Amino acid sequence: MNFVEIIARKRDGFELDAAEIAAFVRGATDGSIGDEQLAAMLMAICIRGASPAETQHLVESMRDSGARWRVGDEAPEAVDKHSTGGVGDTVSLVFAPLVAACGVPVMMMAGAGLGHTQGTLDKLAAIPGFRTAAGRDEALARLRACGVSFAAQSREIAPADKKLYLLRDVTGTVPSLPLIVASIMSKKLAVGAARLVLDVKCGPGAFCKTPVAADALARALVDVARRAGVEVRALITAMDQPLGHRLGCACEVRAALEVLRGRGDPRLRELTLELAVDALALAGRPRPAARVELERRLGDGSALARYRSMVSAHGGDPDESKLATPRQSIPALAPRGGFVEAVAAEELGWIAVALGAGRRWQGDAVDAAAGLEVLARVGDRVEAGAPLATLELGHREVEAGTLAARAAAAFVIGDEPPSRMPLVLARVGEPG
Amino acid sequence: MNFVEIIARKRDGFELDAAEIAAFVRGATDGSIGDEQLAAMLMAICIRGASPAETQHLVESMRDSGARWRVGDEAPEAVDKHSTGGVGDTVSLVFAPLVAACGVPVMMMAGAGLGHTQGTLDKLAAIPGFRTAAGRDEALARLRACGVSFAAQSREIAPADKKLYLLRDVTGTVPSLPLIVASIMSKKLAVGAARLVLDVKCGPGAFCKTPVAADALARALVDVARRAGVEVRALITAMDQPLGHRLGCACEVRAALEVLRGRGDPRLRELTLELAVDALALAGRPRPAARVELERRLGDGSALARYRSMVSAHGGDPDESKLATPRQSIPALAPRGGFVEAVAAEELGWIAVALGAGRRWQGDAVDAAAGLEVLARVGDRVEAGAPLATLELGHREVEAGTLAARAAAAFVIGDEPPSRMPLVLARVGEPG
Repeated sequence: MNFVEIIARKRDGFELDAAEIAAFVRGATDGSIGDEQLAAMLMAICIRGASPAETQHLVESMRDSGARWRVGDEAPEAVDKHSTGGVGDTVSLVFAPLVAACGVPVMMMAGAGLGHTQGTLDKLAAIPGFRTAAGRDEALARLRACGVSFAAQSREIAPADKKLYLLRDVTGTVPSLPLIVASIMSKKLAVGAARLVLDVKCGPGAFCKTPVAADALARALVDVARRAGVEVRALITAMDQPLGHRLGCACEVRAALEVLRGRGDPRLRELTLELAVDALALAGRPRPAARVELERRLGDGSALARYRSMVSAHGGDPDESKLATPRQSIPALAPRGGFVEAVAAEELGWIAVALGAGRRWQGDAVDAAAGLEVLARVGDRVEAGAPLATLELGHREVEAGTLAARAAAAFVIGDEPPSRMPLVLARVGEPG
Repeated sequence: MNFVEIIARKRDGFELDAAEIAAFVRGATDGSIGDEQLAAMLMAICIRGASPAETQHLVESMRDSGARWRVGDEAPEAVDKHSTGGVGDTVSLVFAPLVAACGVPVMMMAGAGLGHTQGTLDKLAAIPGFRTAAGRDEALARLRACGVSFAAQSREIAPADKKLYLLRDVTGTVPSLPLIVASIMSKKLAVGAARLVLDVKCGPGAFCKTPVAADALARALVDVARRAGVEVRALITAMDQPLGHRLGCACEVRAALEVLRGRGDPRLRELTLELAVDALALAGRPRPAARVELERRLGDGSALARYRSMVSAHGGDPDESKLATPRQSIPALAPRGGFVEAVAAEELGWIAVALGAGRRWQGDAVDAAAGLEVLARVGDRVEAGAPLATLELGHREVEAGTLAARAAAAFVIGDEPPSRMPLVLARVGEPG
């Protein structure tokens, strides 16, 4: 069967079989199927959707398009964590040393940021000297050395995903549940940790705008992971405002260190603890005891100590004073008094990007010093003229006044205290 | 608005406006939009469809992507005819001299065949010396000289259609009503005859398998033509078997000459007359009188005389004995006796292609001598071992026995006389 007939079957809503999906992924990987045909298939999948079986075939074909690290074979206890992308989400930098400090190894593959969220790879790069592992042997060596390994998303892992992601970006086929599931899970399964904790963001600043959409994505991710033999838990968490109070690379490393010192942003701390409890539960720890141990590790400095050894094992300098600092801070002031009803996380993310903290396009340079501090959260009472946020200016020349006005406008201020959304909206994939 | 956002709007089922559709067509024409983005948009249109307004914008943008001949300005009486593509359909070669012989000039743009139907351009090329006009001035000069002008589909006419058609062919986006309407009508409107007769084929051998589908296509074509100021009539006609009894290039020229001599295949003759009546009605002739005049022109040799002057005006030799002849004829025999219930027109079309009478791919050479004669029609009673068809072998070496067996299998033979489908199923676009 030639590929045009396979496209036509998907166009007409028929279910593709494993061989047809494998042909699609193989053609994307080796270049034997042209971009115009791949794009037509992506749009057909985007509009027609995919069955659970098709999604599984897609994930597994993409996983098998490159190298498989099979981390679970070497380190069956190792846990991976993935977030679908939030603003001010510095969880990974706390989660990894915290969970490792409890004796559970953490293997994470970090990606570069694109668009309004900052990538973990860029935050780690703000730590002087920090080098993510480039290959399997190096990644496993670090895991053995300090219980944590951050690897950079490499060319050898799921090359089909890289190809298809670039095409999706220019063809209007990014917002497709099966394509998102395949992109996330193909890489996770190729790295091959046997345990996985997922954080599916829900809200105006996330891909999933509603709890229904987030639930569908979380269930699809959990189902694919289980069928591939991975033990998995997923949280659906609120992205109705930035998670932590700091946005930007060096800024977010500081935010992580605050939590590791037992203080820090309460929402960032709470979500990290929730996800870490799941990670420890996957390792067989009873949840209440896990929570107690995690809080103790944050309080007694052992999580911070693990952070330092983790940074050192990755060639980095854990000294906080070596982090880049902004050259100037500009406040964004409240135009009126009242209660903060909403904070537009995506808009603040884009302002941080404009300051230099992220990438508008692939290949943009990222300025570790640039960022933004959120001073007012949903439910807070503010006075007119009070600072709502602080813009941290890095090296880039920007129209700071305009950006400060945009930042102020990202805060919706009303007369009544708003109803509050819980941070954790739901858990998906609990056993039983 | 960048083009990804326009794709996304179509993906989500929103109606595009004139400027958005113009941007799509402009990008296809000048190459500023990549094939992968064009393909994604084509698939979104293919699945989501297009509103009448979107279809009109698409047709007119594609019409305006190249030169406009505005034939209607020079020759307001000139009529064009278009068929959506049938097997054994030699109507154009009879229609043009016949209608011209009645005093109504005929301006037709002929395309090369691809797939299971033969193109008018290939049939004309079987006439020694025949040259279709290459540009507007030459086409109009021929129209003035003999009342008929056949032009070759040129690069300057609707280049957006050429680009998009090649993409549709490889991306599974051919069977889309708005894209088909846009492809047909953009070229017709660019040539610019002010009157148009359409033949929409319906049946297993056509794009429209059912009367409902054919009605939708006919109405869409008529609506677009009217909104562009063209007077139009459409027939929906049966493609439950080949129209005429000859398939192939020189074969079909012979079939046309048989009708022009007042005899010939009754179905080919009847459909030509039906379409010609519409053409004369568009020129203001009362239908009954038009039918009488047309039959008279076939009977008294004046249509044949017009064919000869038309061929001469196009540089060709009207002498029938100069047409290519097959080197050998092979019969396809009935495996059993009974009534012919159906004749698979598409399959016979592909067998003719295999013999050399058409193109499997762009650029294939066509053998004018190759073809196929259909000897048994739906409703005929046949004896076991009687010939159902004759394969006319040209220069190509083929497995004639295998092809003859395939040809015989294209005839469904049963025990009872089948119900007969009328040749003209419906008329669309009658005034009032």
